[in-house]
Amino acid sequence: MEISYVNNDQQMQLVPLTAITSLNKGLGFFEGALDPDGIVQLNWNLLREDLSLPSAVLYEERLQHNLDWMQQFITAYGLKLAPHGKTAMAPKLFARQLQAGAWGITLATAHQTQIAYAHGVRRVLMANQLVGKANMATIARLINDPSFEYYCLVDSAAQVEQLGAYFSQYRQRLNVLLELGVAGGRTGVRDNDQLQAVLASLSRWSASIALCGVEVYEGVLEEELAIRKYLQNAVEVTRRLLAEESFRRSPALISGAGSAWYDVVAEVFSAANFGNTVEAVLRPGCYLTHDIGAYQKAQTRILQHNPIARSMASGLLPALQVWAYVQSVPEANRAIVALGKRDAAFDAGFPVPALHFRPGFRFGDAVPKKAGEHWTVTKMMDQHSYLQISADDDLRVGDMIGFDISHPCLTFDKWRTLPVLNSQYQVMDIVQTFF
Amino acid sequence: MEISYVNNDQQMQLVPLTAITSLNKGLGFFEGALDPDGIVQLNWNLLREDLSLPSAVLYEERLQHNLDWMQQFITAYGLKLAPHGKTAMAPKLFARQLQAGAWGITLATAHQTQIAYAHGVRRVLMANQLVGKANMATIARLINDPSFEYYCLVDSAAQVEQLGAYFSQYRQRLNVLLELGVAGGRTGVRDNDQLQAVLASLSRWSASIALCGVEVYEGVLEEELAIRKYLQNAVEVTRRLLAEESFRRSPALISGAGSAWYDVVAEVFSAANFGNTVEAVLRPGCYLTHDIGAYQKAQTRILQHNPIARSMASGLLPALQVWAYVQSVPEANRAIVALGKRDAAFDAGFPVPALHFRPGFRFGDAVPKKAGEHWTVTKMMDQHSYLQISADDDLRVGDMIGFDISHPCLTFDKWRTLPVLNSQYQVMDIVQTFF
Repeated sequence: MEISYVNNDQQMQLVPLTAITSLNKGLGFFEGALDPDGIVQLNWNLLREDLSLPSAVLYEERLQHNLDWMQQFITAYGLKLAPHGKTAMAPKLFARQLQAGAWGITLATAHQTQIAYAHGVRRVLMANQLVGKANMATIARLINDPSFEYYCLVDSAAQVEQLGAYFSQYRQRLNVLLELGVAGGRTGVRDNDQLQAVLASLSRWSASIALCGVEVYEGVLEEELAIRKYLQNAVEVTRRLLAEESFRRSPALISGAGSAWYDVVAEVFSAANFGNTVEAVLRPGCYLTHDIGAYQKAQTRILQHNPIARSMASGLLPALQVWAYVQSVPEANRAIVALGKRDAAFDAGFPVPALHFRPGFRFGDAVPKKAGEHWTVTKMMDQHSYLQISADDDLRVGDMIGFDISHPCLTFDKWRTLPVLNSQYQVMDIVQTFF
Repeated sequence: MEISYVNNDQQMQLVPLTAITSLNKGLGFFEGALDPDGIVQLNWNLLREDLSLPSAVLYEERLQHNLDWMQQFITAYGLKLAPHGKTAMAPKLFARQLQAGAWGITLATAHQTQIAYAHGVRRVLMANQLVGKANMATIARLINDPSFEYYCLVDSAAQVEQLGAYFSQYRQRLNVLLELGVAGGRTGVRDNDQLQAVLASLSRWSASIALCGVEVYEGVLEEELAIRKYLQNAVEVTRRLLAEESFRRSPALISGAGSAWYDVVAEVFSAANFGNTVEAVLRPGCYLTHDIGAYQKAQTRILQHNPIARSMASGLLPALQVWAYVQSVPEANRAIVALGKRDAAFDAGFPVPALHFRPGFRFGDAVPKKAGEHWTVTKMMDQHSYLQISADDDLRVGDMIGFDISHPCLTFDKWRTLPVLNSQYQVMDIVQTFF
């Protein structure tokens, strides 16, 4: 019986290994293993070349600014924030998000949920279907802890049947949200027939599966009008299920919002005026580090149109950069940088040179200067980038370039440890990721 | 003085942490931390759903086949194999490659070199420029061990000056290969002027930098004729530098070959008839797991044209798959699979369904069957794939799909631990990666 090892004592043994060795990419050298506090004592500075580049770094001031910004924005609408933790998978950042006022942490898989739990997170919205025996067993172990609140999504009778059969064995109650989808989209019921089939299956398994709310992911759509219609439908389905007393949680939950349309979701859910009957939970994740690509574009729209965003002092700031060395300038217009597909996302635009620094005690720069605006990454290979420059640019082998990135998720997952820098480029913390 | 901590005792402290917790993606559950042998004792089987999917797995028989195949191929030409370790960054696989007869391991960065050293590798060809203070310091610590043989590339006087200034401080001797490049390519000297400038700089720093050979990477070109010309040029430059007694190693080294054109490199280097004066070192890396994309295509050409490849029993076999669950079938022609950009490479073609398995003690399959040939991944998001299917396909929520992949490098780096399976899908080893 699997239930035999589901108990709190054993859950506590999910304690992660926090010791870090110098074998991690992007750090400096030290002997043996240290925890992040021990590493900070080493007093590393990026500009002193204490780090082995390439290195992905977080900027503390910008990180804190973004943390506060999104919490304020969501709070201004009277809504709840459950930041999507899949972006960074960094428990230290989860803790800061919760401390800043987040309602819980959103995650995408049972594996990610287990990591958050092991690091003390006690409310998880798993914005995805829970499927598969080992994944269900993971969640069964975690929800055996009465202090752990967990929700996952359902969108088919077939899936509810599998969950029901599994969790009823252990007399556990699994909380779920009904996912509404759109034709041509990702997951989620497409029509009323599918919705009714899910509800019928939920009634059959009412002892073990509890419907607690409704969920959408508007990021599968690209047009604001279609998104508003989809969100409005979620509001109406929620009202109907409230009226039919289908929810086993009070207040019920309604949840939506990736990192690009959270303003529209906030507007629609707030305008629904659910009062105390429904908690609306928004799930942006990329706001934490922001970027200079897709999310910068989304943020520009938000700052133009959203009155609350407009009223705030400044928008989100890019807080994640990857630093790398120029390793060769083999042609007048081409520099080769030791930064590859292994180091930064490349699927939503290549990294963009932001800062340029020539290290060196006597002949180097005091502080980084702005990178040439015309410097452009034209190609990335596993370990290299081709940088288009002008023949008269003063760019040399050994120069350091700080790259802004597009798509933080696929940048974070290339790093196990990220130094956190203060405004003097001093390492003041180490963030560990768990992918 | 940094030299103060460069000694063998301290190098020994680069011992990695091998303990694995259940928090790693793609494993099953266990308490506390175990090493790979301890995990094997848990007796996991993929088909029994003991693993939390998605999970990237290696197939032992195919891995061993590929290991032997490439070693035989290179040996048949009388050349040396230094497999590119950046592909998997798995020291356990480095050890098997060396045991199978590899001359050394090729790597791309100082960080990767340190990892290989920490796991016992004692000959590394770093097929890249060494740049930056912390990176040079890493190599300085490692080559302080007289049993460690290391080579990196130089392609500019500027870079040689930096290496010379650094390594002369510690009275160390750094071995380098001269990289020859092509116009419009990546690194490497483009013409004779650049080449002479590098040689002049090497003479100035002859006490600390030793030229040991010549290196090319033909993978920056796409046409066989251009590749043969480039390789022939490398042969001629090597002859000239031999005649000028420019090399400080005897035999000198000549090195080339990624995973797509190793046959042509073997032919050209072998036909050069250097005899005892030169060792030719080839560096394919992806052969270890092969794939069903770019490298499968390259292998088809090789099996058609290369007489030695043709004479061998069979070609390379795909030895890496990623398994994932169908989480939703929301439309008749669309299944959503819990496999995302976080789990498999997507830059050289999406993953391709190879196997289909319906788990379950009573109603499931006994063994995986071939996946529908028309099943096609049409889109990938961070955690999901869209799978195009036919309305009459028997594909259900909870079914498992084994995906072949294209581009092993960018698949490996998404996983910290990969179960190795025998032909019964039983976990018989765990391979750890260090990215």
